[in-house]
Amino acid sequence: MDVYYNLKKINIKIPNVTPRFQFVSGVQVGNLLFISGQTPEVDGEMQFVGRLGKELNVENGKQAARLATINCLSAIESIIGDLNKVQQIVRVIGYVRSAEGFGEQPLVINGASELLNEVFGSKGNHARAALGTNELPFGAPVELEMIIKINDNKN
Amino acid sequence: MDVYYNLKKINIKIPNVTPRFQFVSGVQVGNLLFISGQTPEVDGEMQFVGRLGKELNVENGKQAARLATINCLSAIESIIGDLNKVQQIVRVIGYVRSAEGFGEQPLVINGASELLNEVFGSKGNHARAALGTNELPFGAPVELEMIIKINDNKN
Amino acid sequence: MDVYYNLKKINIKIPNVTPRFQFVSGVQVGNLLFISGQTPEVDGEMQFVGRLGKELNVENGKQAARLATINCLSAIESIIGDLNKVQQIVRVIGYVRSAEGFGEQPLVINGASELLNEVFGSKGNHARAALGTNELPFGAPVELEMIIKINDNKN
Repeated sequence: MDVYYNLKKINIKIPNVTPRFQFVSGVQVGNLLFISGQTPEVDGEMQFVGRLGKELNVENGKQAARLATINCLSAIESIIGDLNKVQQIVRVIGYVRSAEGFGEQPLVINGASELLNEVFGSKGNHARAALGTNELPFGAPVELEMIIKINDNKN
Repeated sequence: MDVYYNLKKINIKIPNVTPRFQFVSGVQVGNLLFISGQTPEVDGEMQFVGRLGKELNVENGKQAARLATINCLSAIESIIGDLNKVQQIVRVIGYVRSAEGFGEQPLVINGASELLNEVFGSKGNHARAALGTNELPFGAPVELEMIIKINDNKN
Repeated sequence: MDVYYNLKKINIKIPNVTPRFQFVSGVQVGNLLFISGQTPEVDGEMQFVGRLGKELNVENGKQAARLATINCLSAIESIIGDLNKVQQIVRVIGYVRSAEGFGEQPLVINGASELLNEVFGSKGNHARAALGTNELPFGAPVELEMIIKINDNKN
């Protein structure tokens, strides 16, 4: 299985994303890689803004989660060089900006889980938590935070 | 110390819980086990719905945290087979759905911490963060996310 | 580089902070140290209370993030004894209590990131997620949760 073949099949190009402030895209300790939070930005512009259950619906949210996932892939690639080195997506936390009464955060974060399974196959099987929140950076509807297991063991 | 003896003493049976979507109950890397977020569901039904400080009080919230903890135990057991293999509860993050002005999230998450100490003794001593949030999946008042250290070291 | 020299230069004294409930300041597994959530308390008193974008502005929030960071340093020191044993600040999650429409959580959490870089130099380079939330324990405007890599490898 080649990750880049899977990405091409579903027409996804990995963008270049770098943190704007005093932190880094991710930090590796042993075979664990901790990735910085990602939102659905493309070329520095938020592609969706608003709250699920008010300005946005579940389908919008899933698309936003998908874009945030692609930014996570960018962060991973920028650190380990080759996404085929991913041995397992360990854990995904998905924060969903929610209007009062919106409780379908898991359906939104499925947008991330489904893409991870498309791209990584069984290596994409992850532990997950889907959470609601009232506000996210710059109005983003979704933010994702991931922990990845990688093959090479630089300590 | 036998964990199942402790559970029986306080009349807790570990249920069977499986994720409904494309993710897994937990992922193990080395001796760390990352558990998916758990809410106070029993047999697929949320036992408490609402916000702390509005529809629910601290005692309800503690009960909800206790039920979510039991679901975490279920997830752990489904992966490692035997809760006696737990060497340490490493970290617990507790999200508490909070009405405006409710600031007693730590008292709610005590429902989880106290149960972990009852069941695991000093192995139940964990790092913790208690947080508020406006919404959680399917109206849950509490969601828990845990990292566990286990004995056997399958890499 | 000596961490205590850096702290003295910017006039920071590490306080003594202990959890009030049934959990611990942090748990170490291998060379990873998981730190309990910290708020801007000093001597048991919250130094800022309120929501960003309403009762508090970004500068207040940055100060609060700075104080919460100092409490994280206290937790780390209480466990490993010497902050010079910190090899890397691995990951920082910053929760910012936000009024409706406030989206500048990253600017608030810069108060933590900048201090970590001042104190630890390049060892302070961390993965980060900045998140909004409606409520935090006891009215705190900021809560921080950290993972640290340390030198000595007691398993």
